[in-house]
Amino acid sequence: MTTQFLVEQIRKKESFLCIGLDTDLDKVPEHLLEEEDPIFAFNKAIIDATHHLCVAYKPNMAFYEAYGIKGWKALEKTITYLNSHYPEQFTIADAKRGDIGNTSTRYAKAFFEDLGFDSVTIAPYMGKDSVEPFLAFKEKHTILLALTSNLGAFDFQTKMVDGKELYKQVLETSQTYENSENLMYVVGATKAEFLKEIRNIIPDSFLLVPGVGAQGGSLKEVCKYGMTKDIGLLVNSSRGIIYASNGVDFAQAAAVKAKELQLQMRMELNKE
Amino acid sequence: MTTQFLVEQIRKKESFLCIGLDTDLDKVPEHLLEEEDPIFAFNKAIIDATHHLCVAYKPNMAFYEAYGIKGWKALEKTITYLNSHYPEQFTIADAKRGDIGNTSTRYAKAFFEDLGFDSVTIAPYMGKDSVEPFLAFKEKHTILLALTSNLGAFDFQTKMVDGKELYKQVLETSQTYENSENLMYVVGATKAEFLKEIRNIIPDSFLLVPGVGAQGGSLKEVCKYGMTKDIGLLVNSSRGIIYASNGVDFAQAAAVKAKELQLQMRMELNKE
Repeated sequence: MTTQFLVEQIRKKESFLCIGLDTDLDKVPEHLLEEEDPIFAFNKAIIDATHHLCVAYKPNMAFYEAYGIKGWKALEKTITYLNSHYPEQFTIADAKRGDIGNTSTRYAKAFFEDLGFDSVTIAPYMGKDSVEPFLAFKEKHTILLALTSNLGAFDFQTKMVDGKELYKQVLETSQTYENSENLMYVVGATKAEFLKEIRNIIPDSFLLVPGVGAQGGSLKEVCKYGMTKDIGLLVNSSRGIIYASNGVDFAQAAAVKAKELQLQMRMELNKE
Repeated sequence: MTTQFLVEQIRKKESFLCIGLDTDLDKVPEHLLEEEDPIFAFNKAIIDATHHLCVAYKPNMAFYEAYGIKGWKALEKTITYLNSHYPEQFTIADAKRGDIGNTSTRYAKAFFEDLGFDSVTIAPYMGKDSVEPFLAFKEKHTILLALTSNLGAFDFQTKMVDGKELYKQVLETSQTYENSENLMYVVGATKAEFLKEIRNIIPDSFLLVPGVGAQGGSLKEVCKYGMTKDIGLLVNSSRGIIYASNGVDFAQAAAVKAKELQLQMRMELNKE
């Protein structure tokens, strides 16, 4: 998917919401456990109920890998369902991978070609030759971890490197990589005040912003400091939406929560 | 597995060799492609032929994930085969994961409990709360990326942070994490001269050392600067061993290459 198409979808739906599919069998409604594939059944119901309110879905690989082969089957079914029924959705494999050359190429093929995701999240620690194999894929996007929303972010990411925080070095250095136009970045909403300086370094890049809601970040702040003329934001919510209810009404409850966020996003978009 | 048991195995076998199972269907001998599960058939033959020469096996997750469900099945069979036939082998899931709290816990359970690996490789970028969930598992080991053997290592890892290279900050900071006694570190052999300073920070920790052979690192140098009184080294070789031949003799050829390395290791061990 091209960035332009994503921007069009955001304008059309008046939403830059990404829904995180962190599907956990301990949290899905009990009646689904009788299904042949409860993970997929849950995802399908959530997607069918919310697709008109969001522009992206982000399955977190850890949740699927935790269930072994059963989890991989559910993941494959989920991405196939998205690509066949809602091809307008931007899909993110939240994998946080990072490995050298030929191993990165393997991962890139697995996520982009075999599974058919539009994008994948990548950790920057191993540098250029761990990131560029992902960037080589046309109309696919590599979402690099820059400033994450967890406490551990202060261990290394905000440390000063040559007079500048490490996450800023990651932003700057990665912009020199080949095909860097295919880069997006993860920037946590819990650190929205950092967005102003981030926009000085990467004025136009799309940002995937976790941490709104459950983790305490404010949508208003994120938009104030992070929004560009082409929006440039995908704001993710996972648990706040998909676990809004654990009754038979779970999908409708998820849609209600997604609608609340979409309405706030609509307001922010109309401020432009 | 306890570190003490691993050290005993090293002394007994006079080897600190780890064999990387980067199994690639484009590189395995053609006659194996007729097997029902060529990936597992290849791994099993390599393991049966080399287990007496090494103390560890390291499947690289990317190679298995690249084949989707088929790959995961082969991975499960491989680790199950190792744990049932060669429980004395230290097993490493080379996953380079790194995610926040509950997601890390998911990965930890998947690798340590469901699959039964002894250890997993982890990227440090997200800090404390992305690493500690792995450290919480008893007699399991978390192998943190410190200084990798690729060129991209110079993008961030060797940058100065508060007067000290980032990888040294990773070593020091991670030693303050809870259950840090369960930490090991990845340090590339291509940067053996760095090992002296690394040993000033972590005098006793086990190091997983890739990059000997194919990537140009010298075993002698690694031992000179990195070996401790309890050895403290696992030296990995992947392609140099497992793809020594692509004929019907591939497993014997792998054993020959493994034996060469084991003999060099024996010499280094006897220098102590």
